[in-house]
Amino acid sequence: MLNNKFTININSLFKGALVAATLLSATTFSANAQSTQATQYLTPAMEKQLAQLTTSVENSDLAYDIVESLTTEVGARMMGTPADERAIAWAVAKMNALGFDKVWTEPVEHFQWIRGDVEANVLAPFPQPIVAIALGESVGTGEDGITAEVVHFKTLDDLKVAKPGSLANKIAFISYRMERHISGKGYGKAVGARVNGASIAAEKGAVAFMMRSVGTDDNRTPHTGITRYANGVTRIPAVALSNPDADLMVNQFRRNKPVEFFLKVTAMRNESVQVQGANVIGEITGSKLPNEIVALGAHLDSWDVGTGAIDDGLGVAMIMSATANIAKLEQRPKRTIRVILFAGEEIGLLGAKQYVVDHKDELKQHVLAVEWDFGLGKIYSMQANVGEHAQPAISALAGYLEPLGVKFNDANKARGQSDMGAVTDLGVPAMNFAPDGSKYFDVHHTDNDTLDKVNRSDLQQNTTVYTIFAYFAAQADVSFR
Amino acid sequence: MLNNKFTININSLFKGALVAATLLSATTFSANAQSTQATQYLTPAMEKQLAQLTTSVENSDLAYDIVESLTTEVGARMMGTPADERAIAWAVAKMNALGFDKVWTEPVEHFQWIRGDVEANVLAPFPQPIVAIALGESVGTGEDGITAEVVHFKTLDDLKVAKPGSLANKIAFISYRMERHISGKGYGKAVGARVNGASIAAEKGAVAFMMRSVGTDDNRTPHTGITRYANGVTRIPAVALSNPDADLMVNQFRRNKPVEFFLKVTAMRNESVQVQGANVIGEITGSKLPNEIVALGAHLDSWDVGTGAIDDGLGVAMIMSATANIAKLEQRPKRTIRVILFAGEEIGLLGAKQYVVDHKDELKQHVLAVEWDFGLGKIYSMQANVGEHAQPAISALAGYLEPLGVKFNDANKARGQSDMGAVTDLGVPAMNFAPDGSKYFDVHHTDNDTLDKVNRSDLQQNTTVYTIFAYFAAQADVSFR
Repeated sequence: MLNNKFTININSLFKGALVAATLLSATTFSANAQSTQATQYLTPAMEKQLAQLTTSVENSDLAYDIVESLTTEVGARMMGTPADERAIAWAVAKMNALGFDKVWTEPVEHFQWIRGDVEANVLAPFPQPIVAIALGESVGTGEDGITAEVVHFKTLDDLKVAKPGSLANKIAFISYRMERHISGKGYGKAVGARVNGASIAAEKGAVAFMMRSVGTDDNRTPHTGITRYANGVTRIPAVALSNPDADLMVNQFRRNKPVEFFLKVTAMRNESVQVQGANVIGEITGSKLPNEIVALGAHLDSWDVGTGAIDDGLGVAMIMSATANIAKLEQRPKRTIRVILFAGEEIGLLGAKQYVVDHKDELKQHVLAVEWDFGLGKIYSMQANVGEHAQPAISALAGYLEPLGVKFNDANKARGQSDMGAVTDLGVPAMNFAPDGSKYFDVHHTDNDTLDKVNRSDLQQNTTVYTIFAYFAAQADVSFR
Repeated sequence: MLNNKFTININSLFKGALVAATLLSATTFSANAQSTQATQYLTPAMEKQLAQLTTSVENSDLAYDIVESLTTEVGARMMGTPADERAIAWAVAKMNALGFDKVWTEPVEHFQWIRGDVEANVLAPFPQPIVAIALGESVGTGEDGITAEVVHFKTLDDLKVAKPGSLANKIAFISYRMERHISGKGYGKAVGARVNGASIAAEKGAVAFMMRSVGTDDNRTPHTGITRYANGVTRIPAVALSNPDADLMVNQFRRNKPVEFFLKVTAMRNESVQVQGANVIGEITGSKLPNEIVALGAHLDSWDVGTGAIDDGLGVAMIMSATANIAKLEQRPKRTIRVILFAGEEIGLLGAKQYVVDHKDELKQHVLAVEWDFGLGKIYSMQANVGEHAQPAISALAGYLEPLGVKFNDANKARGQSDMGAVTDLGVPAMNFAPDGSKYFDVHHTDNDTLDKVNRSDLQQNTTVYTIFAYFAAQADVSFR
């Protein structure tokens, strides 16, 4: 059921903006030029279909229903687990039910990793239990756990300059806190410790690595995420503490007494055991140019915490519902729209890497690619990366989306988000829509990534943008390459 | 260190208000009468001391430092645990260090309860792990756990009218969600299920009881709290699910298929084993009327989750720092100020019940009693329960506190909060300060009750109010009884 309180009358917004655009276009040459572009690409037929699609999103809860279905009927779905198998079956059934023309799966493989549990306790100076979670693909400690003194570093850079051997038989701990920002740019500054911290600590002799979660919340729900072991370096267990627990550690360190710690991690990294996942792919076939593909991506897998509502249930819901809405039109658009639900994004973009191998010869037929893998929040900015002759078309699209609060960044240097980066790095034209990421890292990779975090009003704006984009890209009379 | 950004210049507020009060007092008889009252109780000597105390709170981080110390050096402290022993030692040492004149402990006993762990899983229609926590003093399930169908009730009232025997071999689940309110009044409507739900479900034949947490947040940190077993009814395991998990259950029920569940609770209720806690009591001795006692209460114990920062570390910090500030004045006020850190509040007001037994003959010397056990938020309202002749003095105090945002409710029907209710129910005059409780039940009885939730600005207002109140009550020339 539609929650009317949060419904934006998008058609009215558009009408107002078009009137305003018409008034303005008479006043300057550049505005006139823009108007001409708009007229060229936003033909009456195109406008009619876009308006119909907008109404269709407004009057439907399809995107919400899809993420509700995925989180209720499947939940967390780490690649290669039984839940992931259920997710794959769910996705195939859902796309078929939504009227896609073709649906199929393509296998993706990886070694097995089992999370297990973490037991973490400060033993001295002040005994306290600590809430922590294993980083993805961390090794375990063994049954006896590790009892050792903790050495505190404020940043990864501080750890990097620790003297060789100075951490022998110690546990390294980095307390750097991620900054909150609309663009999510704090993530880049914080995630290096998660990816590389364990190996750098091991090089200095550390027996385990602990870090403050890469997250902006103050909940005792720590953030997991992949860690990487460098070649030739001892693999040591790696865990993330929740922000309140990291604060507690810092406050204990302020007492200037040795901090003794017990850490037991029962994670298992079984590199000799292979598990299987799958990219799930669905299409509506183009009516005139079926071999030209507009690619919409999201990842089907999630971490094994939360229910994967935000990361990336929202992406799955948006691109599936956008395509389903277009499938309900009387006529298919000219080009094929392909929905790719990637496997194993969380554990290293595995599905995307497999996709560009499996579809090597077909990539030149991918005319434009977009992903949604940035969770919550309204889209506030868009940027493309297309051939010069296609820029007026993108500009016309941007003008059409502006009343929804989407500003056009015309730098034309976009890269696909997450999985789709692997595709656009190989020359496929890219589109990137940036949502307000201020709250995303409150729940990212935690047990708190659950359905209640979905804001229906935001999801409706997001879905409207993706639906309009997908139809425009599949229908516009232009080559984006 | 004081965070100046959040500092209110309380002296300036007072000065402005007093000027305004002076202007107004000339205009009406009732304002004139109020002014006379104010002059009678707010003597120049009293005003001088209150101003000095206000400055002393403004220029100090003492209250914050105390709660930081308690949460960092002790943390969670359920009565009768080793951490509770450390908390008692901490409190005695801290009050001595703060210049209290007398500090002592009084033993409190109870049976042992050990939380253990909860393993909870939906088995069908859609397998998913569920985050839950045992309610306080729940029995366990035994090693094999319980596998049973769940029956869903929207409210406790719905459970009450279920047919006898209708829950045989079933698990009862109540999904009622607590409402958020500044007064915290949603708690009263929600907590009945926690206290009585298990016994009511057992009467209908249920083998276990589950409920949505009594909490207003959307974090996957479920809320514990005491449950009670009625006499003569089978004791069944009782757990609370986090709000997102309760939502997930409700969404599974919406599919109209039987919900099969596995629940294992390793809690142990060892009624034959006694554990000991203690009320910790400290005083500054009155200079003229040492046998007249102003009682300031809070509870030292916490649940065994979080670090007990909000419930009730804040109360401990406020009353200890208020008294320490008064102890730093050149002269002790006339009456004795007694700080009572109660034991075992969470498991049934045990310390308060023991206190009124131990101090039965002395209660008539308690001239006024107040507690702080309502966590976060600025005080917005005050109400007393005193003899008629004392009401002008309370009115004068209220006028003095008004510039801090404290409104006077003159119903004169106050009861002490939590522990202190047991004291004021026996005829001791009561004062009750009500803080903004909108956010309290986001963290109440959860792992999220940690130091970062303390708002320094709120804590400073709270501490100022309690300091002014304590000094006024100990010094004013009035009998409150």
